[in-house]
Amino acid sequence: MNRVRFRDPAGSIRTGEWNDGTVSFGGETYDSEDVTILPPCEPTKIVCVGLNYAAHAEESGSEIPDRPLLFLKGPNALAADGDTISLLPGKERIDYEAELGVVINQQCRNVDREDAMDVVAGITCVNDISNRDDQRVEQNWIRGKAFDNAAPIGPVLAAPEDVPADAAVRSRVNGELKQDGTRDDFIFSIPELIEEITTYLTLEPGDVIATGTPEGVGPLSDGDTVEIEIEGVGTLTNHVSSE
Amino acid sequence: MNRVRFRDPAGSIRTGEWNDGTVSFGGETYDSEDVTILPPCEPTKIVCVGLNYAAHAEESGSEIPDRPLLFLKGPNALAADGDTISLLPGKERIDYEAELGVVINQQCRNVDREDAMDVVAGITCVNDISNRDDQRVEQNWIRGKAFDNAAPIGPVLAAPEDVPADAAVRSRVNGELKQDGTRDDFIFSIPELIEEITTYLTLEPGDVIATGTPEGVGPLSDGDTVEIEIEGVGTLTNHVSSE
Repeated sequence: MNRVRFRDPAGSIRTGEWNDGTVSFGGETYDSEDVTILPPCEPTKIVCVGLNYAAHAEESGSEIPDRPLLFLKGPNALAADGDTISLLPGKERIDYEAELGVVINQQCRNVDREDAMDVVAGITCVNDISNRDDQRVEQNWIRGKAFDNAAPIGPVLAAPEDVPADAAVRSRVNGELKQDGTRDDFIFSIPELIEEITTYLTLEPGDVIATGTPEGVGPLSDGDTVEIEIEGVGTLTNHVSSE
Repeated sequence: MNRVRFRDPAGSIRTGEWNDGTVSFGGETYDSEDVTILPPCEPTKIVCVGLNYAAHAEESGSEIPDRPLLFLKGPNALAADGDTISLLPGKERIDYEAELGVVINQQCRNVDREDAMDVVAGITCVNDISNRDDQRVEQNWIRGKAFDNAAPIGPVLAAPEDVPADAAVRSRVNGELKQDGTRDDFIFSIPELIEEITTYLTLEPGDVIATGTPEGVGPLSDGDTVEIEIEGVGTLTNHVSSE
């Protein structure tokens, strides 16, 4: 079952069932156009993984890491399906990055990889929007990756068992396919990532792990529509504005 | 006035007045030993500044930056005055870093430096605990800086006008003075930091800016007591355990 968090016509925040563009909760069914779709969870932090696909490591001129490259985005970076993403003014290159997002269901630390799927609430789509102008020259990618609305996420949370082991991870800009990876190209699997991250950081319910992006990243421009599609999950759509 | 967040003997969380080891709220005065001191705020993120004192940039072999070096810690990193800090197992060097912490009072973005003090709730002490083993080899300092209890903070929130422009920023380990900087050695002032950070990130009430550390950082060991003192604010004390 795919769940979606939304604000209903009365302004109440609910978590309903998503079916082909409709949202159902409490015996009511709404057209998704008539409600406000919200991010599917409320993370205290988004733990992002860099270079988790060998081909993307290559395109960015990096070596394949021997442990996951990690970075953080705060809750200020969140955006929802349908939101218009404001590009930072004065930057030459701000990129889309299609990522499979893992949402955590409980407070956890020191999770063994064997037990890691027990702490997963579900899978969603993440767009790891990246400001290359600053990322290139920063030690830590704060201006580069953690700026406002640099983490559109959603619309749905899919049950882990509904997402194939070789699920496609794709992006499209204005309908044109740009990235087309699969989850079985991950260098580090979801359980390995959860084990490594929770060796250092406690995760909270609603926290998100963004699992890295396949090759084919590229720039966004004013007026673009960008879609992130995960097979078995759905499609996250955002419009882009430079205003 | 110095304020302190605490859990009273009935278990309720209150914000009271701090006077010389006593805490007052609602007509009651408690000895600080009889209540649980909490971090003075509940940040959604801690925005940290690296290399904001020229002498510390020198000791760490870095050039003086032309804009603030930024990194993030999430709420998982918080610890309070009096808490025992667990060192990550198997690491050779985990350091204290004395820092002046700026607590934000309102949601804000694109704040001009001229107006920046309007968004400051107060000043507190921060210990930016740093795992050098991993920091040295990471692009983004997640294992190195964002691990659990890597951000002890408190105990009090002091009004900005009570903190001298040349306030001392000191650390002591087991009573021995280790760092002794002053706020007027900052490369980037508090208003300049707020302007730069909010060009990229929305800050929320309770968010913390840790303004960098003076020279004299060094290692912590099992059994140590580490104190961070800011003149006009107070002293943050933590015990250290390797268990």
